[in-house]
Amino acid sequence: MNQPVQSSKSNPLNESTITIVGVGLIGGSIALALKSRGFTGTIIGLGRNQQRLDSAKAAGLIDVATTDEQQAFENASLGIFCTPVEYIVNQVQSAAKFCPTGALLTDAGSTKQVICEALDGDLPNSVEFIGSHPLAGSEQQGFEHATENLYQDRVCVLTPSTPSDNVARLRTFWEFIGMQVVELPADEHDHILARTSHLPHVVASALASVLDESDHQFAATGFRDTTRIAGGDPSLWISILLTNSTAICSGIDQMEAQLREFRTALTKGDAESLKKLLQTAKTKREQLS
Amino acid sequence: MNQPVQSSKSNPLNESTITIVGVGLIGGSIALALKSRGFTGTIIGLGRNQQRLDSAKAAGLIDVATTDEQQAFENASLGIFCTPVEYIVNQVQSAAKFCPTGALLTDAGSTKQVICEALDGDLPNSVEFIGSHPLAGSEQQGFEHATENLYQDRVCVLTPSTPSDNVARLRTFWEFIGMQVVELPADEHDHILARTSHLPHVVASALASVLDESDHQFAATGFRDTTRIAGGDPSLWISILLTNSTAICSGIDQMEAQLREFRTALTKGDAESLKKLLQTAKTKREQLS
Repeated sequence: MNQPVQSSKSNPLNESTITIVGVGLIGGSIALALKSRGFTGTIIGLGRNQQRLDSAKAAGLIDVATTDEQQAFENASLGIFCTPVEYIVNQVQSAAKFCPTGALLTDAGSTKQVICEALDGDLPNSVEFIGSHPLAGSEQQGFEHATENLYQDRVCVLTPSTPSDNVARLRTFWEFIGMQVVELPADEHDHILARTSHLPHVVASALASVLDESDHQFAATGFRDTTRIAGGDPSLWISILLTNSTAICSGIDQMEAQLREFRTALTKGDAESLKKLLQTAKTKREQLS
Repeated sequence: MNQPVQSSKSNPLNESTITIVGVGLIGGSIALALKSRGFTGTIIGLGRNQQRLDSAKAAGLIDVATTDEQQAFENASLGIFCTPVEYIVNQVQSAAKFCPTGALLTDAGSTKQVICEALDGDLPNSVEFIGSHPLAGSEQQGFEHATENLYQDRVCVLTPSTPSDNVARLRTFWEFIGMQVVELPADEHDHILARTSHLPHVVASALASVLDESDHQFAATGFRDTTRIAGGDPSLWISILLTNSTAICSGIDQMEAQLREFRTALTKGDAESLKKLLQTAKTKREQLS
């Protein structure tokens, strides 16, 4: 893994001011990760609720708490948008107007194609946006659940549309907080994440909905694990799912085809087919661990 | 919770000899739970592989390790069949011939109707079988993964077909190892468990099968949790699924209907419907915790 560029003895990451838009679980954990790894530049938290931002500042996550976009960006070297997917494009476009020359903007959104295509060629030349997706999170919300090691050893996908020195700079940033960085085209990212993240969310939600209230006491660990992510915030997930709907629908079709194979084997009492289906799934699952 | 009947100062459970058939994760954890709670009667482990049984004995789980059915049952007061569902009926029928008068037999199978109907009225009058399903387990196998607290605070369903003093006796046994006992008709048990356990296994397996090998590094916690139970032993699950196929197929139909609702909302870009689907799932999931 690359060593971060040293800007001075006191600051191990070559960014003077990092602005985090949306200081919740994701943005708050980035702030904590930076602080715990010795980042001594300024961390600015931008949001809509001054009281919540003040609490995050009092908790030591950020140095400056502001609802003022200009104040948040006029000195920013790096800006990270940790807001719901549907807000990111507009927020980046708006913030770019205030940024100093050389500012690098990125995000933490779970879909990349819609965001990156909208911003590509749409910003002042003095500012660059490169999409990021740190693959870490939780169904919990709020900076109170933020942890300094949320990103440790997890994968972060960057989706640059053109080569740029800023790709290496952005890689250095995510590596500094412990991540393994991978570059992918935005559309490829979205197709993969449809299978590994978005379809599982739909499936867990559909399964949770099948439960009767009277079933609760009979739902053991298996059910709880399988449906855990259905506890995620719907308002975050609507825009993720809608900005990747084609790939997710294709995943739903694959899922339905698999379920129909199980149904056919069960209806026929076909132990051999059932064994093949279960063994394939077990093998695929075990390759993950 | 009832206190166990005291047979003597040295044995807090009124069973002299408990025979466990199948000393794996389930049977082994029963043995450990008994020992750790001060049971001082004899625990006999019956299985097909003497070497494995000897290892379980050496590890302190059982007092007697045997592959001889007569030796295992001629002094048994309580027998628990912790073997795959498809073997239980034949094993109980065979063991009953060797049991002393008053012996109580039960099992730990995940489906109950097929087993209980097959054994109802089919055993000598001197012996009684009552179905049990302790709702605890793991995708791991073997007595090496057994733990003394696998059953602590978990639900155990009993499915007696007729009233009997042995129901209270069996309840006392499961409560002794920490379980909360619930009585249900066998068919009702199977319908509930189709939704809470068997359908989730099918769904997790179907989802795991959708994953491409190249996706692995992009599968984060959500995918791992949602598919964890797909790592279970196929040979155990084939007979569970086949002995409850009608109820599971009905669950698959509900699941497919839910997935189609998601698909329709995604195709139409219908944020309002998507929100309702996700919110219903989140609410149902949170009622569980």
